This record gives sequence, structure tokens and C-alpha cells, in this order.
Amino acid sequence: MARNRVGVIGGGQLARMMIPPAVELGIDLRVLEEAEGMSADLAATGVGDYRDLDTVLAFAETVDVVTFDHEHVPPAILRELVGRGIPVHPGPDALLYAQDKLQMRAKLSELGLPVPDWAAVESADELGVFLADHGGRAVVKTARGGYDGKGVRVVTEASGADDWFLALAEDGHGGALLVEELVDFRRELAQLVARRPSGEVAAWPVVETVQRDGVCAEVIAPAPGAAGRVAQASADIARRVAEGLGVTGVLAVELFETTDDRVLINELAMRPHNSGHWSIEGAVTGQFEQHLRAVLDLPLGSTAPREDWSVMVNILGGPAEGTLQDRYPAALAAHPEAKFHGYGKAPRPGRKVGHVTVGGDDLDDVVYRARAAAAFFEG
Amino acid sequence: MARNRVGVIGGGQLARMMIPPAVELGIDLRVLEEAEGMSADLAATGVGDYRDLDTVLAFAETVDVVTFDHEHVPPAILRELVGRGIPVHPGPDALLYAQDKLQMRAKLSELGLPVPDWAAVESADELGVFLADHGGRAVVKTARGGYDGKGVRVVTEASGADDWFLALAEDGHGGALLVEELVDFRRELAQLVARRPSGEVAAWPVVETVQRDGVCAEVIAPAPGAAGRVAQASADIARRVAEGLGVTGVLAVELFETTDDRVLINELAMRPHNSGHWSIEGAVTGQFEQHLRAVLDLPLGSTAPREDWSVMVNILGGPAEGTLQDRYPAALAAHPEAKFHGYGKAPRPGRKVGHVTVGGDDLDDVVYRARAAAAFFEG
Repeated sequence: MARNRVGVIGGGQLARMMIPPAVELGIDLRVLEEAEGMSADLAATGVGDYRDLDTVLAFAETVDVVTFDHEHVPPAILRELVGRGIPVHPGPDALLYAQDKLQMRAKLSELGLPVPDWAAVESADELGVFLADHGGRAVVKTARGGYDGKGVRVVTEASGADDWFLALAEDGHGGALLVEELVDFRRELAQLVARRPSGEVAAWPVVETVQRDGVCAEVIAPAPGAAGRVAQASADIARRVAEGLGVTGVLAVELFETTDDRVLINELAMRPHNSGHWSIEGAVTGQFEQHLRAVLDLPLGSTAPREDWSVMVNILGGPAEGTLQDRYPAALAAHPEAKFHGYGKAPRPGRKVGHVTVGGDDLDDVVYRARAAAAFFEG
Repeated sequence: MARNRVGVIGGGQLARMMIPPAVELGIDLRVLEEAEGMSADLAATGVGDYRDLDTVLAFAETVDVVTFDHEHVPPAILRELVGRGIPVHPGPDALLYAQDKLQMRAKLSELGLPVPDWAAVESADELGVFLADHGGRAVVKTARGGYDGKGVRVVTEASGADDWFLALAEDGHGGALLVEELVDFRRELAQLVARRPSGEVAAWPVVETVQRDGVCAEVIAPAPGAAGRVAQASADIARRVAEGLGVTGVLAVELFETTDDRVLINELAMRPHNSGHWSIEGAVTGQFEQHLRAVLDLPLGSTAPREDWSVMVNILGGPAEGTLQDRYPAALAAHPEAKFHGYGKAPRPGRKVGHVTVGGDDLDDVVYRARAAAAFFEG
């Protein structure tokens, strides 16, 4: 009998968005959520702490393959699952690179992939040296735990990361910070691919992402003007990352397109990613369906776009009062063409609570309509 | 706070296919299933007999609006819900016409809508009179309980329905059978519309349906060659039925396109319908999303097609051994462009266990590929 039970660790909106394709394909999706009532609650079969071995083991024994809503499960737990013969995708060896940016940069450099200049720095003095070599400006990142702009800081002085060095020292482990050149980029791109354990890789078109305050605000698919060399370079990079790091499932590679026409890797995520939400309606196979296929080692679906342009706009924070649903009568009436997604999360400033996707053949019009539709849910 | 809890009575595949759009829109979908482990089990919050008032009442009190996977809930129970102020869509006055074909024919005739010649017959003698008036051939239907070809029979002799007359007599209620002229039709069409309680109506393009052994086998959207007069006539008929019968939610009108170029009503279904499954991927707003919007009295979404052609092929019966999932490795590899739907039902001869939809711009190619993809799951 075919393996058909997919266990997702983490009950956030990424797990939630796996539910529709699981229902459609007849896949038995089961979620271990951190607390009751989370975004993916409908598919939850367990509630507990993903840092607790017994909790994760008990859950994993009820499924055929384990995958993730996030990248924070401790490697020791993942290795224990693998040791017991439970398939884990992406596996602990790959996730290591998503969990530790220093390991990731070292591996990408070793593979000869294009990354910004970087160094591991353990002191203000070492940071000062890097700054002196890079025009007095750099980006400092904590190796672990950052997301959505957290754990990332632009520095112009050697003392600019002293608090983080202190925190590392107090943590008892010591360790280094990642410092990178401040890339002079034209725009940010994201390249998503999916890879099966047996090797098949499928790439969606590269997209342009627009960040606000370090958080993804909008995505344009495909990235305008990127049809030729940039698209090919992006797809090649993501494929090499997926293969070089042994990633299984969906991999998101966030990229800089530099003012001197290079494409450099910024960040990686080894899971479905905000920059791929457009694909739910905008591609023949959306990222959540593809992730399920990939982790079950099923043949991947077509990643061809279904529209000339798809634009996704996040709903950040949501209504100041009430729920997303309170805004539906006005929003749906004004935008019968838009696809609305609510994550079942209470509105809170800055929180990703939903998104809107619009497709069409006139980019300016599609951008305008997607923003206008999303704006119904703010303020 | 906006109404957001939709209760579905019945746990079949139609309830199941409401789950993806409910998850996407953030609608709280709850299902009363007939038994544990049914197709819509994931969203089930109750298990019980829909013919039992207390069971239905207890379920209905947990939701903001009640709708259906099927049309079989007794009218007395629905009236009790309405009497208690619980919105029911479609309501009991409309559902009456879906539950009783004689009532439906009488109402459609009263509205001046185009139907085949018909009569209510209570004896073989009366049937004989109708046969004599219609070239010696007719279709006899039981007024209640028929579906997928059951309760429908072509007769050429006055005695051809004696067993059904006997059953009616033994039932104690007496009552009549419906007899209709055997329509000389070119093909069968289906026109789906959705209607909100507050009146808005939205129509998808009319589609062609291909039946085998009285069961829907394939659907082509839109119906080839129907762009002009036939499409307009079909949409007008369905709108008039929805308004005339007070239908809320999705209404499916099955139609005959006659050899003399008329469009006649064959059957009605007051719920999402097999002939609308293509719209999940093939239209901007699929029938299951539209049904949820309609029953919550939310603005309806665009029904524009997303492809030149969409073809849906049912998986009838399914694999002779094993599950649909066992066929996925071969089917998905051969058809990366196809959208596969499994209903979580055990294969059984003749049972609808899933469907496949393919879209594209060359109809012959799309039909070929949809049939080929579905064929992986048969035999």
C-alpha cells in the first residue's frame, strides 16, 4: 500500500496551506501543532512541544513521512527519527544549513555558489576589520533564530553588534556572528524549486519580492524582465543548492539582483515560502501541493504559470478591530477576481494573517488590484 | 462579528470538496457525517442520522448557516431549523422541488420554463394514454429518491412500470409516477449558477456532460459550439429556476439540447454538482468556493473560465486492487499537467471515487489527456 500519511511539525499557516492540496489529492495530512487552535488546527492530530523528543516521536510513529511548517526542530530529534527509520524531508543534514547561517554560508562557498562576501566574526575587532575592507558598512546576522528581519542589522561601526556578542558570550556557547557585505542590489528575487528524495527537481519561474521593514510585502510572478539570463541563473543556483545541500521538499532561495547584474544568494528556506504563495492559483502546481508530492517522493507536477502575471500581497496585521471576515462583504464585492486567503489567526500589528492573489495580463493593473484588494483588510 | 461557521449535512465528496476553499477563505466548515470515516471526515464535528431531528438540531446549533452535501434531509426537520431562526440554504421551500420531481415539474411548468412533455400517472392505464400520445415511448421516473440513473426507466408498454406502481401502493402513501416524453436530444448540457439570499446570481459557462449508464462520465467546459444562443438560453433558464424556486447556494440545471435546437430542463440539483468539478481549477471561482460564499450571503466571485477548455473525467470504481494512491507514481509521472482528486473512498465498481481535470487550448488534446490520466486509476 502506498505511503500516504504526511506528518507536519508545526501548526502555522504553511501547514494550513498544505491542507487544501492534501484533501484534493487524498493525502492523509496530520499536524503536530504547538498549541490548540493554531492556524492548521483542522488537520492537527497532536499538540505539543517540537523540542520534546517523546512528543515528536509519538507523533512521527503515526505517519509515513515527517515534514515541517518551520525549521526549528532540534537536529538531535530529527536524527533520532531517521535512526528509527522514519523518513524526514528535508532531512537533518540539509536542515542544519537552514538552522545555522554560518554553516550555510560556508557550504555555499564550498560549492562555488554566488554569495555576498562574508565572514564569521567573534569580536568587535574582527567586525572592524571586515568593515574596513568593505567601505565601512556591513550586515551582521545572528547565525541562528532570525526570521522576517529579526536577527539582522546594518552596522557602520565595529561596536555595532556588541550586544549580540555579549549575548553569545552569556549564552555560554560563545560562537560567532555572520557579517556580510552590504550588497548594492537593484531588487530582491526568490527562486523556488522542489526536489524529491529520488532526485527529480522542478523550478517555478523566478519571482520579484518586495520587502517592507524586513518582511515580505508583495511578490510579482514572474519577476519582470527576468525571462532570460537572470531567470536561468536563478533556477541554476536553486537547483545546485537543492542538490548540493541535499534538500528534499520545497526550497526557497532568496536572491539579490545586483546593480552590476549579478545574482547572489541572500537566504534559504527549506519549506514552502511566502514568496511562493502566488503559485496556489498562479501555477499549474502550487508550492504546497508540490511539497506534499516531493516529501512522498511522488512525481512532481508542472510548474508552468497559469497567468501572464500573478501578484500576491500580504495582509500584515489585519483589521484594527474585528476579524478578516468582517471585511469580506466589502472586499469580495469590490474584487470578484481576487483570491483571498485567511490564516485563521487573530489580527495583531505586523503579523501575517492572510494574503491576496490576483492574476492577469496587464502587470500594472494586476498590481493595482492586488494592493487594493488587500487594503480592505488593513486599518 | 461576521457569520463564519458553515454547517454541512452529509459527509460525502461534495462536503469534502468544500474543505479546500473553506480553509483558504478562513471559513469554519463543520460537517455532520452519516458515519465515521466518510469522505469529508476531516471537517466532521458530528456523526449521526440526518433524519433524526435531535441530531440535526444539536449540530445546527453549533453553526451560523446550514447547507448540504445532498438533498435528502426531511422537510419537517428543515422547517424546524428555520422556525428556530437558523439560516438554511437552500431552504426547505426550494428543496421541496429537488426532493419531489412531480412538484418540480409542476412548478417549472407554472413558471413557463421549457421542460419535456410530462404527466403524473397513477396507473398503467394512465401510462398507456401518455405512451399513445408520445409515439409509444416514454421515460418513467419515481418522484422521490432517484439519482445517478436510479429510479429512471424507459418504457414502451403500459405495464412497464407495474412494479413501481405496486411499490407505491405497498408504501401506503399511494402517489404518482412522473412520465416524460423521450426527448430526441443531440447532447446533454449542464448550467450551474449560484444565488445569494440577498439576490445576486452568478452563472458559469454552460458545459457539455457525457453520461454512461446514467452516470456522469465526462464534462467539457465550456460546451463546444454553445457560445451564442444556447449559452444564453441555458444561463437564462438557470437564473429563472434559481429565482423562481428561491434557490440559494449552487444550483445545477441539467439540460437537453434537442435535435430541433431547443434547450429543455432535464433535472435539477440544489448543491454543488459533478458537472461543476471542472471549475475548481478551470474557473476563477470554483463551485465549492462559490457555494460557501453564497450560503454566507457574501459577494459572489468571478465565474470566468481560466482556460480555453477544461475537461473533467470521473474516476468510476477505481482500481480493482489497492487504492488510488497506489496508481499515483505512474499517473503523476505521465501527466504533470493534470489535477488529480481523490475522495478518500474505497474503490468499488461504479462508485465515484475521484476525478481528473485537465485544461488547455486544444480541445482534442485536452480530452485525450484527461481520459488518459483518469485511465491510470481504472482496472
